[in-house]
Amino acid sequence: MIKIGIVMGSDSDLKIVKKAADILETFGIEYEAVIASAHRVPSKVEEYARTAEERGIEVIIAAAGMAAHLPGVIAAQTVIPVIGLPIEGGALSGVDALYSIVQMPKGIPVATVGIGNGQNAALLALQFLAAKDSDVRDQLRDYKEQMKLEVNKKDDRLQKFGIEGYLKTK
Amino acid sequence: MIKIGIVMGSDSDLKIVKKAADILETFGIEYEAVIASAHRVPSKVEEYARTAEERGIEVIIAAAGMAAHLPGVIAAQTVIPVIGLPIEGGALSGVDALYSIVQMPKGIPVATVGIGNGQNAALLALQFLAAKDSDVRDQLRDYKEQMKLEVNKKDDRLQKFGIEGYLKTK
Amino acid sequence: MIKIGIVMGSDSDLKIVKKAADILETFGIEYEAVIASAHRVPSKVEEYARTAEERGIEVIIAAAGMAAHLPGVIAAQTVIPVIGLPIEGGALSGVDALYSIVQMPKGIPVATVGIGNGQNAALLALQFLAAKDSDVRDQLRDYKEQMKLEVNKKDDRLQKFGIEGYLKTK
Amino acid sequence: MIKIGIVMGSDSDLKIVKKAADILETFGIEYEAVIASAHRVPSKVEEYARTAEERGIEVIIAAAGMAAHLPGVIAAQTVIPVIGLPIEGGALSGVDALYSIVQMPKGIPVATVGIGNGQNAALLALQFLAAKDSDVRDQLRDYKEQMKLEVNKKDDRLQKFGIEGYLKTK
Amino acid sequence: MIKIGIVMGSDSDLKIVKKAADILETFGIEYEAVIASAHRVPSKVEEYARTAEERGIEVIIAAAGMAAHLPGVIAAQTVIPVIGLPIEGGALSGVDALYSIVQMPKGIPVATVGIGNGQNAALLALQFLAAKDSDVRDQLRDYKEQMKLEVNKKDDRLQKFGIEGYLKTK
Amino acid sequence: MIKIGIVMGSDSDLKIVKKAADILETFGIEYEAVIASAHRVPSKVEEYARTAEERGIEVIIAAAGMAAHLPGVIAAQTVIPVIGLPIEGGALSGVDALYSIVQMPKGIPVATVGIGNGQNAALLALQFLAAKDSDVRDQLRDYKEQMKLEVNKKDDRLQKFGIEGYLKTK
Amino acid sequence: MIKIGIVMGSDSDLKIVKKAADILETFGIEYEAVIASAHRVPSKVEEYARTAEERGIEVIIAAAGMAAHLPGVIAAQTVIPVIGLPIEGGALSGVDALYSIVQMPKGIPVATVGIGNGQNAALLALQFLAAKDSDVRDQLRDYKEQMKLEVNKKDDRLQKFGIEGYLKTK
Amino acid sequence: MIKIGIVMGSDSDLKIVKKAADILETFGIEYEAVIASAHRVPSKVEEYARTAEERGIEVIIAAAGMAAHLPGVIAAQTVIPVIGLPIEGGALSGVDALYSIVQMPKGIPVATVGIGNGQNAALLALQFLAAKDSDVRDQLRDYKEQMKLEVNKKDDRLQKFGIEGYLKTK
Repeated sequence: MIKIGIVMGSDSDLKIVKKAADILETFGIEYEAVIASAHRVPSKVEEYARTAEERGIEVIIAAAGMAAHLPGVIAAQTVIPVIGLPIEGGALSGVDALYSIVQMPKGIPVATVGIGNGQNAALLALQFLAAKDSDVRDQLRDYKEQMKLEVNKKDDRLQKFGIEGYLKTK
Repeated sequence: MIKIGIVMGSDSDLKIVKKAADILETFGIEYEAVIASAHRVPSKVEEYARTAEERGIEVIIAAAGMAAHLPGVIAAQTVIPVIGLPIEGGALSGVDALYSIVQMPKGIPVATVGIGNGQNAALLALQFLAAKDSDVRDQLRDYKEQMKLEVNKKDDRLQKFGIEGYLKTK
Repeated sequence: MIKIGIVMGSDSDLKIVKKAADILETFGIEYEAVIASAHRVPSKVEEYARTAEERGIEVIIAAAGMAAHLPGVIAAQTVIPVIGLPIEGGALSGVDALYSIVQMPKGIPVATVGIGNGQNAALLALQFLAAKDSDVRDQLRDYKEQMKLEVNKKDDRLQKFGIEGYLKTK
Repeated sequence: MIKIGIVMGSDSDLKIVKKAADILETFGIEYEAVIASAHRVPSKVEEYARTAEERGIEVIIAAAGMAAHLPGVIAAQTVIPVIGLPIEGGALSGVDALYSIVQMPKGIPVATVGIGNGQNAALLALQFLAAKDSDVRDQLRDYKEQMKLEVNKKDDRLQKFGIEGYLKTK
Repeated sequence: MIKIGIVMGSDSDLKIVKKAADILETFGIEYEAVIASAHRVPSKVEEYARTAEERGIEVIIAAAGMAAHLPGVIAAQTVIPVIGLPIEGGALSGVDALYSIVQMPKGIPVATVGIGNGQNAALLALQFLAAKDSDVRDQLRDYKEQMKLEVNKKDDRLQKFGIEGYLKTK
Repeated sequence: MIKIGIVMGSDSDLKIVKKAADILETFGIEYEAVIASAHRVPSKVEEYARTAEERGIEVIIAAAGMAAHLPGVIAAQTVIPVIGLPIEGGALSGVDALYSIVQMPKGIPVATVGIGNGQNAALLALQFLAAKDSDVRDQLRDYKEQMKLEVNKKDDRLQKFGIEGYLKTK
Repeated sequence: MIKIGIVMGSDSDLKIVKKAADILETFGIEYEAVIASAHRVPSKVEEYARTAEERGIEVIIAAAGMAAHLPGVIAAQTVIPVIGLPIEGGALSGVDALYSIVQMPKGIPVATVGIGNGQNAALLALQFLAAKDSDVRDQLRDYKEQMKLEVNKKDDRLQKFGIEGYLKTK
Repeated sequence: MIKIGIVMGSDSDLKIVKKAADILETFGIEYEAVIASAHRVPSKVEEYARTAEERGIEVIIAAAGMAAHLPGVIAAQTVIPVIGLPIEGGALSGVDALYSIVQMPKGIPVATVGIGNGQNAALLALQFLAAKDSDVRDQLRDYKEQMKLEVNKKDDRLQKFGIEGYLKTK
């Protein structure tokens, strides 16, 4: 059963969305990904958001750049958590998207992650699911452990080869 | 018949909206002003925007601060022009609202005016109306003439009293 | 009869202006495009703006980068609506142009669109024309419908091929 | 049983934290609030974060201003969701805190809300709890309904008294 | 004979302009001060700038806030140096005015001073005059000497009273 | 013997400088404080910086606002460490001073602390001194311990009185 | 006789400085160009600035990036006008240099031009020289005339070939 | 004996860290370089920082990008000086890292250098060591002398070949 919905405002967001999707796949969590602009197909977005809960969706990741109204527009329609993923793009490098997503009015939160940080959007969604699913929580713990090992492996390599050696073999 | 709709996201925007309304009243143009947050009452906003044209509204002024999705959400629902009026407020002084309103995706324009510049929102709305209403255009010309006179009157006063004198009697 | 004037401060703005022009051509609306810098040929700009209305121009799109005084200088000379199109360029990536165009003083509005968003400048101009021209309004409605279809087509493709498949065939 | 932990870096954050606490109290959800700076009492923070899950805490709200490392430092120690609440303060008005909280590295998400938006931090925490607690979800729905009523009441008042009347009686 | 013209876009700039005027008066240099908005009285500005040189004006100080087109519009009409004085005001605290004044296109320089720094606008104007007027240059040297004395006097006081003592008697 | 020199560009920096001085006094470390603008008394600054080392000064704290050249100008003249303390002031709220102080060219470092953070400037200076003076290092350890106690005391009070009680008695 | 000095902080500024030099050569005005960092060779800079006037230099162009203290350090030593030319470079794209150059303290002006705008630095220097040299002023008038012709020629080409044609043959 | 520790949050920081390491090697000062993310291996960082002093480390350079908590997290655990080196990267170009590193709370200083300025991080570390090691101080003086010679050599070359010649042979 699909518990995570990913909505993106444009297919140019797909590259960042893929980073989120890859994490979810690694965790074996099914998701659905939808292209649905808040400005171009507003009723589709509205219906998606309004019916998400009853369709079993437990958390929505919404990715958008520039004016980036998508996460807020979805959050207006539902009480399940909405994760806002600002996309870098245009002259303002994603600062516009970040401000537009995070500065929501009182009463309608959007859980915002860093600009272009698809991985963190997915991990945050998994932290939500983990509330009810101890298997996901265990996996999150493993993931954290795995990150430690990777950093340590990199450090081992640095100790072995030195800065110059590391950079050459990178 | 009401041709201009003013929508604001919160009653804290009323002070700036009043500057727009005052201009419209000076021009003798009827308007309606509505409090309707894109996030708190999304279907009210959607319906307002979707039915505006058929109700005879020819231009909508949408005022909002912070994430400021209101103008864009309205523009998504209609082909009549939407004027976005960013409101100063919160830690980011209206830069968030400005970016959120002006950086709309391709295909859905919002005619943005300066932060807190209610007067210009109204005058822009009147410039729209003037396309069909030569009386409004004449009034716009008079308004422009009037501004000239006022600047000249101030300059006359400066020439008469000097800087210090002007500042004292200000 | 030409109803839309496009003025640009430099020929380096042409690439963005073309995006506006392409929209106007799609709509079958005649326009004139002029290179006329507010700083290098100020009297040409002044005359253009002052006489635009009597020559039948109903709306002016003014594109400029950096200090970007062009839209404001034109707006000072006319009561027809002026659409400001900030151009990205130089060290400040168009933030200078955006601020310079949108932060007009009270009394002289410029309808500002997003940085480099030539399409929205054109669509806004068409929304103005549509006040008197129901054919343009119908076309705007079609354009909006068309955008919906395109987003839906993209979404269909995403549903069919998945994220990876979509990105590969993009 | 306490399920929400609120940690703040300084007692100067209490005023904003109170907005979060008030929401939680309205919902009848117990919480604990702790003053624990990531820089001044790092081991207290570390222990708090590391043991939160086993003590039954399901979500942590971390409020901090300026360099604002607190949310990230907590997120490094746990797999339960951490909500970052940037506090306005100092010369940079909270932009420093916002960037520092939201721009987390890949792998360690912090769910960031708007600068000084204590209400949204609490509501997001409640959306997390609602995953397992249908009573909280029902309350969230009521809260959303209530917001609608309030906006509508304000709009009714505006329709009744007009802009000037509204502002006078505000 | 008047050699320095000060033009300001609005009488709200007078307080900052006064700081420039005070310096000029201290130096015994006559000036004229004019209120003339580039947007509200464009032909007055154009004529002022175009005829300044023949009327003997050798340097123009132009003060403006927000979109701040005045200095650039004047510089477009003359080859005498134009000093741009950005005024703090509005939501963007003068950053808009600074960018708008300093980021002029190639070929039309405006000599920009700091936001609200009327004194430096005047001193820069005097440095221009000093090219032909050795008396002004001598006065500039005296002024510089005087500043040294004042800093030294303050330092003497600090050495005498210590930090606390200094602050108490300030 | 005086080992720490504090130089400030203006007596308006004294309030922030006092925060540094208070820390030094608490630690029982003698210092000298000098008003000496890099722009108004450049040779005094140059001489101060050039001779500091031979006079026994081991670290210099330089406080300045706006263009804030003082720390860099001092660092150009000496190889002892220079701590840059940006002062909030003017339209840009100290961002100008921060950038001007921290973005030094390669080869001439300035150890920059937060805007208006006089305490940290002093503590950093003490960390320098501690390299040779184990007594200062012990004091730094005590200071750190003391900060812990204070945070814990505040937290105890919060646990005792709750948020509302704490805020009332604050 | 050399009347214009160009000082740059690093040889990486040469590309922008060349734009200034080219203008001066077109005008037949001799200049000297010197590499002299305010931080690496402070006494050379100090001596250059202190003796410039007596060596006949009438205006100094100072180009610098990042912390960009050079123009201010020079202005501290002389009463002849100093033109500050901010160079784009480093992570902050020249905003640091712009703020550092333009936000000078009261009493020590630097005439700032746009980021990387070498041409305007040169033209401003020539406007200074023109105070005493009517030949330079005539050339400035010709230069302005020439710019007009070039803009008009571009516009003629646009009228002839249309947007697409212009872009193809560009 | 190793006196300088370099810690970096990610191996993507190595390129900038190498600039610091190269300086230290030129000075013949041993250092250790460690990859240890404050978020991924928090206990490793904590232990590193807590035990640094007893292992003889006298100064720590901490390099990090984006949220950049590493320098502050280390500074929380030790009283030896911590030098913060912000790394450019991500959508915000290092401004996030700069703010996050420099805006530390009162009591826990981090000596911040410019974005990506590895050289200055190393030189600042050496200035610390020089407090006890006159040989390092002598080398710092030589380094400063060497920089002067290099700038002068560049200037000599400019005088010999002119701007164009210099740029061609660069």
